Amino acid sequence: MDDLYKELCEKATELMDIGSAAAVLGWDQQVNMPPGGAEARGRQIGTLAKIAHETLINPRIGVLLEKLAPFEAEKGYGSKEASIIRLARREYDKAVKVPPEFTGRMSVAQSECFDIWLKARPANDFAMVRPSLENVFGLCAEYSDFFPGYEHPMDPLIDNNDYGMKASDIRSIFGELRKQLVPMVDAIDSQEPADDTFLRKNFDADKQIVFGKSVVEKYGYDFNRGRQDIAPHPFTISFSVGDVRITTRVRPNFLGSALFGTLHEAGHAMYEQGSATELDGTPVRGGTSIGVHESQSRLWENIVGRSRPFWQHYYPGLQGDFPEQLGAVPLDKFYRGINKVQKSLIRVEADEVTYNLHVMLRFDFECDLLTGKLKTSELPDAWNDRMEADIGLRPSTDSDGVMQDIHWYNSIVGYFQGYTLGNIMSAQFYDAAVMTHPEIPEQIGQGEFATLHAWLKENIYRHGRKYTASELLERATGSSLEIGPYMKYLKTKYGELYVL
Amino acid sequence: MDDLYKELCEKATELMDIGSAAAVLGWDQQVNMPPGGAEARGRQIGTLAKIAHETLINPRIGVLLEKLAPFEAEKGYGSKEASIIRLARREYDKAVKVPPEFTGRMSVAQSECFDIWLKARPANDFAMVRPSLENVFGLCAEYSDFFPGYEHPMDPLIDNNDYGMKASDIRSIFGELRKQLVPMVDAIDSQEPADDTFLRKNFDADKQIVFGKSVVEKYGYDFNRGRQDIAPHPFTISFSVGDVRITTRVRPNFLGSALFGTLHEAGHAMYEQGSATELDGTPVRGGTSIGVHESQSRLWENIVGRSRPFWQHYYPGLQGDFPEQLGAVPLDKFYRGINKVQKSLIRVEADEVTYNLHVMLRFDFECDLLTGKLKTSELPDAWNDRMEADIGLRPSTDSDGVMQDIHWYNSIVGYFQGYTLGNIMSAQFYDAAVMTHPEIPEQIGQGEFATLHAWLKENIYRHGRKYTASELLERATGSSLEIGPYMKYLKTKYGELYVL
Repeated sequence: MDDLYKELCEKATELMDIGSAAAVLGWDQQVNMPPGGAEARGRQIGTLAKIAHETLINPRIGVLLEKLAPFEAEKGYGSKEASIIRLARREYDKAVKVPPEFTGRMSVAQSECFDIWLKARPANDFAMVRPSLENVFGLCAEYSDFFPGYEHPMDPLIDNNDYGMKASDIRSIFGELRKQLVPMVDAIDSQEPADDTFLRKNFDADKQIVFGKSVVEKYGYDFNRGRQDIAPHPFTISFSVGDVRITTRVRPNFLGSALFGTLHEAGHAMYEQGSATELDGTPVRGGTSIGVHESQSRLWENIVGRSRPFWQHYYPGLQGDFPEQLGAVPLDKFYRGINKVQKSLIRVEADEVTYNLHVMLRFDFECDLLTGKLKTSELPDAWNDRMEADIGLRPSTDSDGVMQDIHWYNSIVGYFQGYTLGNIMSAQFYDAAVMTHPEIPEQIGQGEFATLHAWLKENIYRHGRKYTASELLERATGSSLEIGPYMKYLKTKYGELYVL
Repeated sequence: MDDLYKELCEKATELMDIGSAAAVLGWDQQVNMPPGGAEARGRQIGTLAKIAHETLINPRIGVLLEKLAPFEAEKGYGSKEASIIRLARREYDKAVKVPPEFTGRMSVAQSECFDIWLKARPANDFAMVRPSLENVFGLCAEYSDFFPGYEHPMDPLIDNNDYGMKASDIRSIFGELRKQLVPMVDAIDSQEPADDTFLRKNFDADKQIVFGKSVVEKYGYDFNRGRQDIAPHPFTISFSVGDVRITTRVRPNFLGSALFGTLHEAGHAMYEQGSATELDGTPVRGGTSIGVHESQSRLWENIVGRSRPFWQHYYPGLQGDFPEQLGAVPLDKFYRGINKVQKSLIRVEADEVTYNLHVMLRFDFECDLLTGKLKTSELPDAWNDRMEADIGLRPSTDSDGVMQDIHWYNSIVGYFQGYTLGNIMSAQFYDAAVMTHPEIPEQIGQGEFATLHAWLKENIYRHGRKYTASELLERATGSSLEIGPYMKYLKTKYGELYVL
């Protein structure tokens, strides 16, 4: 049995290595690659994806998984061995259900739609990309049909990102959240808007980077096992437990972009760096779901990084770095500015309170597009109507409306919910950490994060993908997913900034 | 037949893609990787090598190659199609002769020896690395035995780097060259040494990089299809025709390092960038041999970049960049300084005249180590004796003697000859270019390199690996390999600097 297990591990590591290699090529593509390299690089990444798929669907893996079932049971659910087998099986079972012919069509549709979107968005021409988008949603529905027995065609797609969740679960959580958020947004919107003009002065790019770096180093992001680069779109990517990189976008005329972007990506990166070393090179390394991943980025970005104690500690230093821009701005005003709530059109620029309404809109639409209840031709109007109803603003262009996010145009469907699941979970995890260590908020006020980081590592990071999101929640917080802590967090924080 | 050819091309492209992916991982390892990433990265590159090997020895490739023989003959030797088939066959035929079990042992021996050398060299402890080195040479001899019928066990190893050359060919050329070089070195050595102290002042690193970049851009290195980074060891690496990168090492207290290193690597890179676009993703892309590759790096570094006309154009600008260091140094003195001939211990720091003696020593020793004529235990003394005899200096440590070069300790045997073959060929190619375009030297004096670059592209670069080194020489210069032009070049240049 040990030999069979070893064989499975070797194959699993090979798969991880191919995936990591593709990830390095992708990182390089966004960070370093000269323009001339684009065509061959696309082909090289495609070749690795093809090899990974062939490696995964090797029937020998099926045989090994079957033979290893008793070994898995004997080792027990939480063991490293059983977890490797379980996760290998989950991926194998999915992969063998999808015909290679389909994967080929999907890949063509994806890059076609993406290329057209790259042109259609700046041209504000939704009609140009609509047929490709329709094709993408058609193929997503076709994908789901390889997994019969679903409640909703979104379910198999959600499963790839937030394993174990179904559209009906998400709808019920989102429905409840929405009921509480909408009146909150309306209440805030009727009050005097916060001033954040001081964030939009001119800030030296290098100084911005140095400041953000000093914070995330204190957070616990390990630069011996990572690095930070500049890229047009901020992201985190990991090649192993020992090499987890973040990228940052710097805007000279908006301090918030690099600063909070760096804190956000460091949250993702600390999660990836925190997998137990023994999980490296196995399918158990990494983050267990988009939701849990996002809970970590949002926790470090928002709950910690936009908190008053945090800035009580860090603001004098930031003022020292930028005396001209911030010297005359008192802490209270700064704190209010970085937490400004404002109805806006663009999800990635939205504040903590309105953000989830943007997500819900997208989630509902992708459900309806998959079932055919909504047609892509109706999408722009539906988008604008819903924005007007939910956020009180009607986009004047589709570029700022239905074409703003890359996801659908890159064949990423069933992903958006993770952003809001992450927000909800961030508060649950943080509350549980503070319950065990009530000194955490005070430590944050002293620029000390070791206790919080250690709790997260112990309860979340080190497990990698061993436990599902709901298992992790139960283990770490004693509860299943619930919006209570998140709403309490929002109400407390924003109740202090506005009359609620 | 077209379908079979297409199938072979697809498999060949897949192989190229895997190789390029491994190259990206290797580049990243040397340029960007945080220390924590080392272990997993080694494994990932190993996995790609294993997949590449398995892909190459797929028996289907053997079948395709056999079936495609008539198609190859019909298309003709110089066609793209026949060249792809011929090169695929050459690699397939070699790969299937080497048992995977051996490849595994070789790979272990290689990394073991390399790791020990990394410690033994700074500790000046040859005894520490000797058993591993003996193992490496034993395995190299074993490798050669997979290719029975060789004249000398070096031949199969040389074949991998300078295809078509044999140890006996190289010995005969080297013997002739040696006869002419030794008296030249002795004659120069008895004269007053050139002053190059001004190169060893303090030079701002950024300014050094900017200057080198401005030159290689003028040379014709295309930064839209490449980039330059800082790395501990300068190298050139290519992932496709559209992405060929160079690295540079900058020493603040020696101007020559970054400057001539950049010119050297740009020569390699322009060769790689110059493959016809239609060869991208095929085994025909790239450089045909180490010798020809080195001919291009040395041509642009030495024949062009250390020439008087070049500096007549560029020296005023360099003086402007470094007025304190060079303002008082006249052109003649500078020219003499950068071409200083001096007996020295370290190959990579050697001048044009003595350099080849360092190479010959290594070549002769690896021949004798392979046959067992020389034992690794005798190597340090043999090295020091030969250095004393050839160069007139006896290393006081093995670190500056037998342990100075990475090659053998990294299982690279049968490679050194390429450096001298490159020097010889650089003069042959340059002479042929000037024969066709006598205006080239004058253009160099005006900082114009387009004519020379175009000739090299037309006669060498665009063919990629289509023609062997000797075929290229015949086609481009009308001659086979001969030392005449190289010796004439040295005698003219150094006859002007010294009394010869």
